[in-house]
Amino acid sequence: AALPFTRPRRLLPLCLGLFQGALLLFFALFVTYDEASAQEEDANSTNQVYSIFPFFKDVQVMLVVGLGLLLTFLPRYGLSALTHNFLLLNFSMQWALVLQGLLHHFHHGQIHLDLHKILTSEFAAVTVLISVGAILGRASPCQLLTMATCEVPIYLASEWVIVNCLGVLDVGGTITIHVFSCYFGLGVSKALFGAARQPLHPKETPTPRSDLMSLVGMLILWVFWPSFVAVLCQPGDAQHRAILNTLLAMSASTITTVVASSLLERDGKLSPGHLQNGSLAGGVAIGVVADMVMPPVAALALGSLSATVCVLGFRFLTPLLGRKLALQDQCGIHNLHGLPGILGATASVMVILVASKDTSGSHFSEFSPTGSNASEVVGGQWGGRGVRGQAQCQAAGLAVAISASLLSGLLTGAVLRLPCLARPPERLCFDDSLYFKIQDETESLGPGSTAEEVALALKEQV
Amino acid sequence: AALPFTRPRRLLPLCLGLFQGALLLFFALFVTYDEASAQEEDANSTNQVYSIFPFFKDVQVMLVVGLGLLLTFLPRYGLSALTHNFLLLNFSMQWALVLQGLLHHFHHGQIHLDLHKILTSEFAAVTVLISVGAILGRASPCQLLTMATCEVPIYLASEWVIVNCLGVLDVGGTITIHVFSCYFGLGVSKALFGAARQPLHPKETPTPRSDLMSLVGMLILWVFWPSFVAVLCQPGDAQHRAILNTLLAMSASTITTVVASSLLERDGKLSPGHLQNGSLAGGVAIGVVADMVMPPVAALALGSLSATVCVLGFRFLTPLLGRKLALQDQCGIHNLHGLPGILGATASVMVILVASKDTSGSHFSEFSPTGSNASEVVGGQWGGRGVRGQAQCQAAGLAVAISASLLSGLLTGAVLRLPCLARPPERLCFDDSLYFKIQDETESLGPGSTAEEVALALKEQV
Amino acid sequence: AALPFTRPRRLLPLCLGLFQGALLLFFALFVTYDEASAQEEDANSTNQVYSIFPFFKDVQVMLVVGLGLLLTFLPRYGLSALTHNFLLLNFSMQWALVLQGLLHHFHHGQIHLDLHKILTSEFAAVTVLISVGAILGRASPCQLLTMATCEVPIYLASEWVIVNCLGVLDVGGTITIHVFSCYFGLGVSKALFGAARQPLHPKETPTPRSDLMSLVGMLILWVFWPSFVAVLCQPGDAQHRAILNTLLAMSASTITTVVASSLLERDGKLSPGHLQNGSLAGGVAIGVVADMVMPPVAALALGSLSATVCVLGFRFLTPLLGRKLALQDQCGIHNLHGLPGILGATASVMVILVASKDTSGSHFSEFSPTGSNASEVVGGQWGGRGVRGQAQCQAAGLAVAISASLLSGLLTGAVLRLPCLARPPERLCFDDSLYFKIQDETESLGPGSTAEEVALALKEQV
Repeated sequence: AALPFTRPRRLLPLCLGLFQGALLLFFALFVTYDEASAQEEDANSTNQVYSIFPFFKDVQVMLVVGLGLLLTFLPRYGLSALTHNFLLLNFSMQWALVLQGLLHHFHHGQIHLDLHKILTSEFAAVTVLISVGAILGRASPCQLLTMATCEVPIYLASEWVIVNCLGVLDVGGTITIHVFSCYFGLGVSKALFGAARQPLHPKETPTPRSDLMSLVGMLILWVFWPSFVAVLCQPGDAQHRAILNTLLAMSASTITTVVASSLLERDGKLSPGHLQNGSLAGGVAIGVVADMVMPPVAALALGSLSATVCVLGFRFLTPLLGRKLALQDQCGIHNLHGLPGILGATASVMVILVASKDTSGSHFSEFSPTGSNASEVVGGQWGGRGVRGQAQCQAAGLAVAISASLLSGLLTGAVLRLPCLARPPERLCFDDSLYFKIQDETESLGPGSTAEEVALALKEQV
Repeated sequence: AALPFTRPRRLLPLCLGLFQGALLLFFALFVTYDEASAQEEDANSTNQVYSIFPFFKDVQVMLVVGLGLLLTFLPRYGLSALTHNFLLLNFSMQWALVLQGLLHHFHHGQIHLDLHKILTSEFAAVTVLISVGAILGRASPCQLLTMATCEVPIYLASEWVIVNCLGVLDVGGTITIHVFSCYFGLGVSKALFGAARQPLHPKETPTPRSDLMSLVGMLILWVFWPSFVAVLCQPGDAQHRAILNTLLAMSASTITTVVASSLLERDGKLSPGHLQNGSLAGGVAIGVVADMVMPPVAALALGSLSATVCVLGFRFLTPLLGRKLALQDQCGIHNLHGLPGILGATASVMVILVASKDTSGSHFSEFSPTGSNASEVVGGQWGGRGVRGQAQCQAAGLAVAISASLLSGLLTGAVLRLPCLARPPERLCFDDSLYFKIQDETESLGPGSTAEEVALALKEQV
Repeated sequence: AALPFTRPRRLLPLCLGLFQGALLLFFALFVTYDEASAQEEDANSTNQVYSIFPFFKDVQVMLVVGLGLLLTFLPRYGLSALTHNFLLLNFSMQWALVLQGLLHHFHHGQIHLDLHKILTSEFAAVTVLISVGAILGRASPCQLLTMATCEVPIYLASEWVIVNCLGVLDVGGTITIHVFSCYFGLGVSKALFGAARQPLHPKETPTPRSDLMSLVGMLILWVFWPSFVAVLCQPGDAQHRAILNTLLAMSASTITTVVASSLLERDGKLSPGHLQNGSLAGGVAIGVVADMVMPPVAALALGSLSATVCVLGFRFLTPLLGRKLALQDQCGIHNLHGLPGILGATASVMVILVASKDTSGSHFSEFSPTGSNASEVVGGQWGGRGVRGQAQCQAAGLAVAISASLLSGLLTGAVLRLPCLARPPERLCFDDSLYFKIQDETESLGPGSTAEEVALALKEQV
């Protein structure tokens, strides 16, 4: 008989409670609302409410509802997937708010809170939500919160190096968010599960019904993705272009995913997993080039290519990594965030280099990689650096993101092996009943049940 | 054998049809579109479309999809919960439109319809949707519509007294909507079910799957709640602050709910019911102070506190009220709307009193409880009343809301006992098949079914 | 024993892949972003992002999530319904983008892409998504894509004739989209299935759970429908009026559907199918008159009437057409799009005729069927044509839409009979496992299973 598993019952609420208390104290001491705007006749507030809030809501729908549902493909783990996603989003957002406040916005002992700062904190939380996908179902909430605690500061540091020091252009977070969080998650998974290959768990296989819920989550993400990419763009042409490029890339992704999936499966059927991920691959890849001046065909091509790479990754690379490296990647984040992210970063190098050739032509006066408005913003960096320099920056940013995240992910994964964090034993994984007080209707149905009892249970269950 | 239950089959459609006919007549006689705007160069219309409509849509998503799904936690009552919620929203909104038109907007025999009036009518409908939660699953549609018919005018009167006569500040409807509808619903439940305690119904227990749907509903409500609170705020600083305060309060609620729920349950597991309600408690409580000038920590603290109160209510108060008062509260509206609402009202008193002390300091010129813009609007009342007076007003408003709603709820509940309204017998409760023409796939499976038949039915059902 | 069915496994991906390649080529050669806006200081882009994008997102939510879920009422066909809807939307949108570019926007060898053009392409895609409803579950993806390939150009031609040549006013697409796509779909269905009546398939009957998902889809469509109708309106009064009229019509539809459905069913129960469609009928009918100057009661009456017609259609007309004409209409598109569309077109004739009488009164200076702003836009046509002429135009537009769509639908349906398009045999219809690689958990349960095995499978499945 298997040994009983005793979960530490009070660790999670106590730590979370302490965190919440500390946050209250921090807010009491340092955080105020932006009072400057009173004099400026509400202009800034009105602006934030009308220019950021509509996009902000879309991003929240994506993270809370869309991503949550996408993770419910594990048929008996839906409540946990949704709830852990929701809890981690809130925890990481608050934690990022504190850290960002201390690092960037600390003026005269005060941090002025506004919608923009909450939005950038949510972006930090996104990295956690993505990384967690690698170990979904096999990690305890304590492990997930520890992971979030480690990942947020590392992300903030990495993002600061990539965007502020290197001057990488990445409006949609392809490099800073997607590539970073993917390799962080893979590092954690590798360090946490070690060299032992996990056998296929019987509760791991999606059912048609759980696939349907997950598909709905994907569709919600798909619809609102342009908002995610465009929210931090310069209003005007650059934002319009970012929206259009994202729409084109994701549309191409969708069709290419269907093509690739049915070509790869032996009998021409579609794999729900391919659809759930491949259709979004274009959105991941386009982020880094979305606001750059490039022909629309580039967005379409990037979308197609990234979907192809994503589906190929699911079909060949993930099993290969599993066999050779014993690498566990439950949601296939490497295929959805890693490979398309690298593709996007490569595309940004090419767009910058190709764009530079155009400048010798008649379009010279109009040229700047992010359009007329943005050129003023990044003008200093860009002007001083030159085209080739900017292209090298993009490549350097990618390298920094991958190496920093892999390394820190491995370290974080080692921390997660601490016994007090209570990783559930394999036989209890992928099951809501470990974390939720739910009634299992069929509990009373033992192996000795008669057909009558089963029929009754079935009736109750419909 | 149980007596057969014969539902009055034509009462509901006939009454509803009559109402719809009367509404058509009323609209034909009295309602027009606002024609003034033609001269004002569409400015007002454009303004309403761009400033109200985005928030209005969010509120509709909350009420139609979010609240509807939240109520589907009863596993065999999902169709009824969604449909009754949807029907009541439409009926109450139209009914409120008529009553509001007659009471407030009747000029020269005409009522000028605009988006703002539809929005306030939806707010009236919200009270019905909340109150109904107390008797969900055990009341017939006829009873629900009768309840809506009674509640809307009482709400409009109570809201008029609280906001216009007493001058209570309550931008998010904490007192006028949440507290009112909670005690109205409890009064109805008490008068309807009397002193007999209802035993636990076998179909009352949520399944993991119905809990998942309900959780998705909660998440949708959670995401769009800031729009609900901020839609009627003054644009600019006050609206920006209302959004931020709501975001902070709900984020704190979420984490505190997880803490409280897993501390209270014996084995540290989470209760889905706690999550479905506690995460929203902060949004209920913050409404009344959302646009006031207060430090951000107050929003966090209020969110934490209200979630704690909500979870404690579910764990201790609801069973206690059930035992002592035989009070039936199916959805726990007392824990989600009553207790956090009272907490919010108390907080508004404190914010106003504390804010008054600040006025002796250097912030004097900036001070007003709802910021620079709103101060002009409520200036007259507020100016004449003084800080202490305003604080007393808030308390008086709370008292009016509770007493008026309890009393009128009890009376309404007595009306609902009329035999012609056809309360379903206990054994038929919580079941869609009473109100919907649905095929029960397992109907053919009697107690004598063989394993083969069961297996076949199971196969069909996946 | 039934003959084995061998699906052509490579036809779909190859054709789709070719299409995607051709699209890339087309974009590379001809499509650029609108560069004029750089000089105009981003004004146009900012305008499109702020005035179109919020509505555009709503339309996408409707089509991708709402309509997708609405189609999941077939209990074992959810994945296919969602995915085919999603794939067809993307394919048809891209195809319409190409055709529209060639037909309308080809200037100096270039097509300038903007959000508005993508929006009108999505409108073209809507017609495909509606038409497909007639043959849902019985057609292969190859057939659906062929149908989309045929329908998009015919729609564009028909829309051009109706709007540009005839000058029909139809801001919400009642005639151009709903009526057209309905009769196109019915034509396809007739030609495809011929004179043989399809027997009721055992997997065709909705379960409570699939009805619930479909109902959620309806609610999402219901909430965002005003955006669909108003997105192309003139900003200002006309748009405000379109939103209000749609809200009123849909609210009346909802209540009338409940009335009509429970009056028609023998025991006063509601039919989920009636609700899923009737509540939306008002939105279909109101589109053609939404921005016209008419009393609000007209919107209410139109909503009520169209819901009545829709429910009556489901109850009497669909079975009649099935019996007499062997006409297959799986989703009842004739009741949701055909009948209410014709009703709306008739209403537009009446509104125009009645409005003309008002012009002799004091409101003369204000009068124009689409308000002050729109009058300038359509001024030339309208001015030259006169009231009676415009009314005749509306009727002519309806006639063109019905006849063109029926004829072309019949032809397209004949094309779909090509054997290479691989219509699935009846016994394999309505089943995801034909198109998706899914694990059927109960596959191992043969007729000889013991109660123990069934109980175990049941346990796994919860």
